[in-house]
Amino acid sequence: MPRPPSTVPPPPSSASPERGHGSTGPVRLGPGTGAHAALTPLAVELRDGFWNTRRQVNARTSVPQGPGLLESAGNLHNLRVVAGTAEGEFKGAYPFVDSDVYKWLEAASWQLAQQEDEALAADVDRIVALVAAAQQSDGYLNTWFQLLKGGERYKDLRWGHELYCAGHLIQAAVAHHRATGRSELLDVARRFADHVDSVFGPPGSGKPVDGIDGHPEIETALVELYRETGEHRYLDLAGYFVDRFGHGLLGGEAYCQDRVPLREATDVEGHAVRQLYLLAAATDLATETGDGELRAAAERLWAAMTAAKTHVTGGLGAHHDEEDFGDPYELPNERAYCETCAAIASIQWSWRMALLTGEARYSDLIERTLYNGFLSGVSLDGERWLYVNPLQVRDGHTDPGGDQSARRTRWFRCACCPPNVMRLMASLQHYLASADAGGLQIHQYVSGRYAGDLAGTPVAVTVGTDYPWQGAIALTVEESPADRPWTLSLRVPQWCRDFRIQVGETVYDRSDAPVTDGWLRLERSWAPGDRVVLELGMEPRLTTADPRVDAVRGCVAIERGPLVYCLEQVDHPGGGLDDMVIDTTRPPAVKHRPDLLGGVTTVVAAGHRRHIPEAGWWPYRTAEGAEAPEPAEPLELTAIPYYAWANRRDGSMRVWLPTS
Amino acid sequence: MPRPPSTVPPPPSSASPERGHGSTGPVRLGPGTGAHAALTPLAVELRDGFWNTRRQVNARTSVPQGPGLLESAGNLHNLRVVAGTAEGEFKGAYPFVDSDVYKWLEAASWQLAQQEDEALAADVDRIVALVAAAQQSDGYLNTWFQLLKGGERYKDLRWGHELYCAGHLIQAAVAHHRATGRSELLDVARRFADHVDSVFGPPGSGKPVDGIDGHPEIETALVELYRETGEHRYLDLAGYFVDRFGHGLLGGEAYCQDRVPLREATDVEGHAVRQLYLLAAATDLATETGDGELRAAAERLWAAMTAAKTHVTGGLGAHHDEEDFGDPYELPNERAYCETCAAIASIQWSWRMALLTGEARYSDLIERTLYNGFLSGVSLDGERWLYVNPLQVRDGHTDPGGDQSARRTRWFRCACCPPNVMRLMASLQHYLASADAGGLQIHQYVSGRYAGDLAGTPVAVTVGTDYPWQGAIALTVEESPADRPWTLSLRVPQWCRDFRIQVGETVYDRSDAPVTDGWLRLERSWAPGDRVVLELGMEPRLTTADPRVDAVRGCVAIERGPLVYCLEQVDHPGGGLDDMVIDTTRPPAVKHRPDLLGGVTTVVAAGHRRHIPEAGWWPYRTAEGAEAPEPAEPLELTAIPYYAWANRRDGSMRVWLPTS
Repeated sequence: MPRPPSTVPPPPSSASPERGHGSTGPVRLGPGTGAHAALTPLAVELRDGFWNTRRQVNARTSVPQGPGLLESAGNLHNLRVVAGTAEGEFKGAYPFVDSDVYKWLEAASWQLAQQEDEALAADVDRIVALVAAAQQSDGYLNTWFQLLKGGERYKDLRWGHELYCAGHLIQAAVAHHRATGRSELLDVARRFADHVDSVFGPPGSGKPVDGIDGHPEIETALVELYRETGEHRYLDLAGYFVDRFGHGLLGGEAYCQDRVPLREATDVEGHAVRQLYLLAAATDLATETGDGELRAAAERLWAAMTAAKTHVTGGLGAHHDEEDFGDPYELPNERAYCETCAAIASIQWSWRMALLTGEARYSDLIERTLYNGFLSGVSLDGERWLYVNPLQVRDGHTDPGGDQSARRTRWFRCACCPPNVMRLMASLQHYLASADAGGLQIHQYVSGRYAGDLAGTPVAVTVGTDYPWQGAIALTVEESPADRPWTLSLRVPQWCRDFRIQVGETVYDRSDAPVTDGWLRLERSWAPGDRVVLELGMEPRLTTADPRVDAVRGCVAIERGPLVYCLEQVDHPGGGLDDMVIDTTRPPAVKHRPDLLGGVTTVVAAGHRRHIPEAGWWPYRTAEGAEAPEPAEPLELTAIPYYAWANRRDGSMRVWLPTS
Repeated sequence: MPRPPSTVPPPPSSASPERGHGSTGPVRLGPGTGAHAALTPLAVELRDGFWNTRRQVNARTSVPQGPGLLESAGNLHNLRVVAGTAEGEFKGAYPFVDSDVYKWLEAASWQLAQQEDEALAADVDRIVALVAAAQQSDGYLNTWFQLLKGGERYKDLRWGHELYCAGHLIQAAVAHHRATGRSELLDVARRFADHVDSVFGPPGSGKPVDGIDGHPEIETALVELYRETGEHRYLDLAGYFVDRFGHGLLGGEAYCQDRVPLREATDVEGHAVRQLYLLAAATDLATETGDGELRAAAERLWAAMTAAKTHVTGGLGAHHDEEDFGDPYELPNERAYCETCAAIASIQWSWRMALLTGEARYSDLIERTLYNGFLSGVSLDGERWLYVNPLQVRDGHTDPGGDQSARRTRWFRCACCPPNVMRLMASLQHYLASADAGGLQIHQYVSGRYAGDLAGTPVAVTVGTDYPWQGAIALTVEESPADRPWTLSLRVPQWCRDFRIQVGETVYDRSDAPVTDGWLRLERSWAPGDRVVLELGMEPRLTTADPRVDAVRGCVAIERGPLVYCLEQVDHPGGGLDDMVIDTTRPPAVKHRPDLLGGVTTVVAAGHRRHIPEAGWWPYRTAEGAEAPEPAEPLELTAIPYYAWANRRDGSMRVWLPTS
């Protein structure tokens, strides 16, 4: 049912896009440039709007604080000791602490590609030089093994994370080279990759070790290195690693992705981040080589994961124990693990799938994850982090402290998540849009300039929107080939029940718009100044789950647009949240609150506090006894976007709300 | 509402009770003999019936298999190496493997008190001699530290389990002495206890170490040793240990019970077994010393635990991670940890509370735990074990293998539970009844002979019953003082909604029976041959939970008498369990199945398989869309007692059943 258009947002500011030092053109992100991809990624110039704000917090606060935090935690110290420029013992609790440095370098590199920043550039130069100085003459580098294990190598592949760290180094080097055009770090990465290639190989290859790392990561990095250098050996090595999982080289545990080969797997399992990084690599390989079996496995596992193992926030990983996927439909609330790194890995994998297949649903999941289970991982001020992202904090919760706390923390003992957030946030512009021979595809609605070329002719569209607060998205053609039609494809989000779109003088709604598999495809001869206004229906939704999701039986979640909402105790004085009930017979209202949490649209619903009869000492009773009519205390429930939770006072929180 | 009495069961067989070798009278269990206890425990001679069968399986299968299993796992080997009679390295994965040996010795000792068994006695003698030979000259013994840590002592109290192991050795020695009258093991225990007493003490005591063990256990054992020897130093040492928890000696973690002193605690927290053993010790101390503050803490924490942290099976411990209690009302099903050892610890603590206070509710929880969350820990054949006792196994469950598997296992890497089950099963007769100056109290309805004395005059009652399958319990006075009235107290279970009782010619029901705080108290002049028939209403119950128990919203559990029921996939061919719905409008029926699972009464309920609409790739949808009428496929649901699950084919299982 079409609705009258609301205020159409202004176009984004026309300030010329910022440009990084040393960059010679649009910075490309690796995934998806392979021969078998349906789509090619397009780097977007963000301007104004929701994500630009988040990106600026990342650029101005999170990323600049990195070197100081890596200094305090000892990561840089370890590299200096290995380089011989400092003395002391290894600092840190885990064998993968080097990877925090590399992830930060990657984030800073993407950052430098967008924005001049002399101080940041100096930090990057200094730390790149330190990494280069720490590298062994044969290319190896891992401070844990060099300082604590007497230089022993590749003897503890299950837990040692040597190739995992190498992978993050390689990925950082690719970013650094793409962003700055400089090759100091890429040279380090190539030496390390060549070393790894000289050591690892299948039986009969003459290489000394037939093995894989307990934590996938080097595989995607090697594909990226292949893309950056053209050296086919790196692609082959990635393929070798991916196919050696599942053969018992690591003891056969699902935790390490070693229970079953990916090509035979029927469901995601084990440690969530490991599973997702491995699947991203499999997708990269399918994209580069056309391997149909790997593609089919990736499609199959993505479908299994989203159908039965994904929280409504896009969060992944049901178990604290082993940080793993649980059983199908096992999606707990207070014990949802939903590691921030898993949300990032999910976005990285889904984007590769989107580019490989051209299908919109992958970007549906990316949108959901970006706005909810990923963004919750960093505080609004960019200074504090969540490692786990539960969907509930109970009244009377005892905070365990440590990394798995539901309270934001300045840094973690296992600090994998913060620099991972930084690198995704700094490269966010690569996950938003794509092109193919026939036109442009807008996957995410972010204010900015979307530019590419069609067979050599420039094409550009600007997007102006107050999304996700408002549903109106104004697109203006800036450049277009004059001589031929092309297709502007707009993703109609999976959550969207109604929309209207105005193209020139024509207005469509869901009943007559040309939507195919989630894409609204507008093919015509476009001219500069042509204007399209898409308006997505933004009524709040009360969402239920498949009845097999036992954890949320008899509950609804509030959603609006791409945002999942939650209640926080701080907005409901006079009690906790666990006795609250939402009244689903009265439609929720929407209230924008510019004063609140940096400006959020709240959803206000009717509800009440349940009167809970005195239980005595035993909280279970026969069903008949529980049917007594329930005196209700009416109450207004104020829901805020989930991503913004835990930015005020500690207290309870709920995404899923009982309906009776 | 009284019902006509069903068939009254015959009295138990009149065979003279079995008597252990070397025993000179009824074997007493320590807890409860203290000066401040309201009640004194009474050892019951079990005859026929439900628990006698389970006890015989323990005696004939589980306990005799112990030495072979301890041999295979390396526990006995370690002791031989320390004793110098074998060579080799330490075997086993944990510093507490010695305790498995001691728990087995305790079980075997209780067993020998009830039943002549030359082979078992020889095994006990052999292993007692081995333990004595392994003890250091100054009393210390711990094979992990002696073999792996170069004899280093008390440097890793948080994780080392040295005093924990000492505690189990002491407890075994007390049992051995009580059961056999022999003192070889008691001498070992005293030497160890004297050594510990020479090392540990508060600042200013002149003792070298002010410390506690990360896992409580020695505290109850020391109280027992005090009871057995009369040596007050052991009681004082127990008191010192109990009061040093909560002061940061172990780093202040809740896991180790070190976050807050017990006297100030307001809720149970941390590792469940540690919490429960510590509370048992606090109760022992209150019983012996009259310490009102410790008693109040124990009462407060028991009430908090049962009101918000106990599963309907009596199982305790919500988290796999750290094996700990969760938040209030956090009671998951598939991830219920409910360690078998925690059920045992709960029974041990609650029995101490029952004796200290005389209150019936503690035995209500014991009954619930015995028949459900404890008994599920051992297979019907006594040969396989569960470490965790979940309330749900999902369709499509991936078994993680290892100790936390929901499939029964022959032995565990961490084998704490099996010998713990053996020792509780072998001492079960001590947890059933009590006496005070005014009469006898029957806490649990188990066929057998309940004998004590009232001011020196023998008093005895026999109980005959087919409980828990039938509700009729026939009590016959066998011996009684002729000259004065006394009170026969019968516990009316917390779950019981109606009953009738016939005393001589008088029949009472719930409306007019003299029930006070769960006790039906019959005071009169009893004569041999007097007969009481209590008949508990055994209609199946559909049970709901406090609405704050989110995990079971919209569900009921089937209960009958003291038994919690569950569905198993094997009884429902043609599909899984996760799409099943119970119809609560039709009362369930009862069907005794002598052929099934050793003879169980099943509960048959009406239900259907839910038609689950095709979800596409995303399992969440707007509430309106989910309201479509649901084609139902009617189905008969067959529920079996929870304790008997996982004794047939692997498959899914559910305790809580959705109602719509």
